Amino acid sequence: MPLLSSAELQGEMKRVKASVDGVILDELLPARGGPEVELLYKMMRDYPSRPAKGLRPFLCVTACRAAGGDERKALLTAACLELFQHWILIHDDIEDRSELRRGEPTLHRKYDEALALNAGDALHARMWGALLANEEVLGPHGALRVMKEFSMLVNETTEGQHMELSWVRDRRWDLDESDYYVMCTKKTAWYTVASPCRLGAIVAGAGEDTLEALKDFGLKLGVAFQIQDDALNLVGEKAYGKAKSDDILEGKRTLILLHALRSASAEQRRRLVAIMDKDRDKKTQQDVEYVLSLFSKRGSVEYARRKAKALMTDALESLDSYRWRGDEDAVALLESFARFAVERRW
Amino acid sequence: MPLLSSAELQGEMKRVKASVDGVILDELLPARGGPEVELLYKMMRDYPSRPAKGLRPFLCVTACRAAGGDERKALLTAACLELFQHWILIHDDIEDRSELRRGEPTLHRKYDEALALNAGDALHARMWGALLANEEVLGPHGALRVMKEFSMLVNETTEGQHMELSWVRDRRWDLDESDYYVMCTKKTAWYTVASPCRLGAIVAGAGEDTLEALKDFGLKLGVAFQIQDDALNLVGEKAYGKAKSDDILEGKRTLILLHALRSASAEQRRRLVAIMDKDRDKKTQQDVEYVLSLFSKRGSVEYARRKAKALMTDALESLDSYRWRGDEDAVALLESFARFAVERRW
Repeated sequence: MPLLSSAELQGEMKRVKASVDGVILDELLPARGGPEVELLYKMMRDYPSRPAKGLRPFLCVTACRAAGGDERKALLTAACLELFQHWILIHDDIEDRSELRRGEPTLHRKYDEALALNAGDALHARMWGALLANEEVLGPHGALRVMKEFSMLVNETTEGQHMELSWVRDRRWDLDESDYYVMCTKKTAWYTVASPCRLGAIVAGAGEDTLEALKDFGLKLGVAFQIQDDALNLVGEKAYGKAKSDDILEGKRTLILLHALRSASAEQRRRLVAIMDKDRDKKTQQDVEYVLSLFSKRGSVEYARRKAKALMTDALESLDSYRWRGDEDAVALLESFARFAVERRW
Repeated sequence: MPLLSSAELQGEMKRVKASVDGVILDELLPARGGPEVELLYKMMRDYPSRPAKGLRPFLCVTACRAAGGDERKALLTAACLELFQHWILIHDDIEDRSELRRGEPTLHRKYDEALALNAGDALHARMWGALLANEEVLGPHGALRVMKEFSMLVNETTEGQHMELSWVRDRRWDLDESDYYVMCTKKTAWYTVASPCRLGAIVAGAGEDTLEALKDFGLKLGVAFQIQDDALNLVGEKAYGKAKSDDILEGKRTLILLHALRSASAEQRRRLVAIMDKDRDKKTQQDVEYVLSLFSKRGSVEYARRKAKALMTDALESLDSYRWRGDEDAVALLESFARFAVERRW
């Protein structure tokens, strides 16, 4: 398979993002819906207008090509994946009490919590409306097939989000790595990698074997992607766009944290749990520094990164062992994306 | 048209509700989705398990019969209307900071706000999943047609909710009755009466003329229904299940309030606005009593009730002027329901 440079991958991601942004901002989200709801539409267009990688549309379009489909037919489906990402981020930010999203105040901080919650629902409904418009592109059966994948991915994501939130709420610490993998597969891997790829293949008219191969690739790579996200969250570089160490403030049970807990001394473990169990606004800067230094001493970030790389390698094996019928360059792009997912700094 | 007693109407509503509850609790919402998400499913089943009138399923099933359809084909669609009502109530209760729903603590009070917000999203997704399962009942074209009506009704409802919330947030008082009617048509009338009736007719395979007649009937009656709801909210009887005068605490711009404002003296008006502009937790019992006594002095509740009755009479004219092709008893039930909507005490 031809090797692709990081610049080539990013160029391709940008190209797809530009097409999909056009669909979202020009066709799916009207600039205004009448004077009485002008602000609602402004709020719905807010996250979609912020800088983003657009990796889900990229995966959808690229998998469509790899499965032998026409990428133009995948653009509306790809746009719906972005709408999904936007409404669920609006709600996640409320649930997590996050302050920053893509370098700007979160929607509920910028406006008001009730209006933001409702704007998320409005955007969720717009997503299904756009999926219905897919009938014109894919016919009734194709549109329904795509919607069934969306129904499944929203179920998985809300289940994963429930698991993560309830672990914090119930102060659960009897968790091992397998719990993290189940939660993370549900919360992230389906909607970030597995379903975007599968949706591209569905648009291409691919059969069950292709969908199974992409599920295998996507769930492994999706977990690897989340582990790298957990690592980036600790550092909080500017390009990443979220507040530094937000996950520690939120008490999130990451693979990094579970490793540190497992390898810490009894006294360190006690102090770590006591800090993580504090409410967000009770955690001091000193608390955060203690957790970060413990991660550093125990080598927890390196451990998690090794796991992410191993998952990525497994994911690539799934990809390579499948006989792709479509565009070879597209398969190379998926491979290149897999490496990016665990090496990225944003 | 045969006249129906209130007991006959309520018996019929109960009969339909029992069938639809069976679909929701036995088929659409599994009792558990695995141990790690047991609480999520418990939360999703919470509002559907509380006592309720089930008026939207009743309207859907009855309109289906009036349009000559088979009610069994409408049960899944009717169940989806209930799922809609449940997820949007979960979110409304968070947005409005409500304490009680159907006589029990609201879901976010009973558990936690983040978990409840997410459970609302999960239920929203389950609604679309159930609408997809409608393909088995109605075929692909019928299922898609039903989903298009749902897409429209969710858009209208979220727009109406945005209007109401933003009026409070922005301390808007430059509102007249026509603003209330626009907001209320969007927030309530579509999803409570117009779309339930239209969905029944769509299931029956009715044409555009039937859908137009039901839109006209439903939007007028839906606004009348909301006006009666606003009046009941002030009293807060036990059967009604919400906290007394919650709308005053929330600062809602009801037709009753707009009438009182318009007919009050300058001094009364100033005091009324000052009270309504206070944050929910700053409003005293004395404040609420002042508002209620002003409503009483100005005859605002009676005024609003007269408006509701006039709307109901117009709605009945729309219903009666249409030549129904289906079950005559079903048309009589819709007529009887219209009277109930403005006379009910719960």
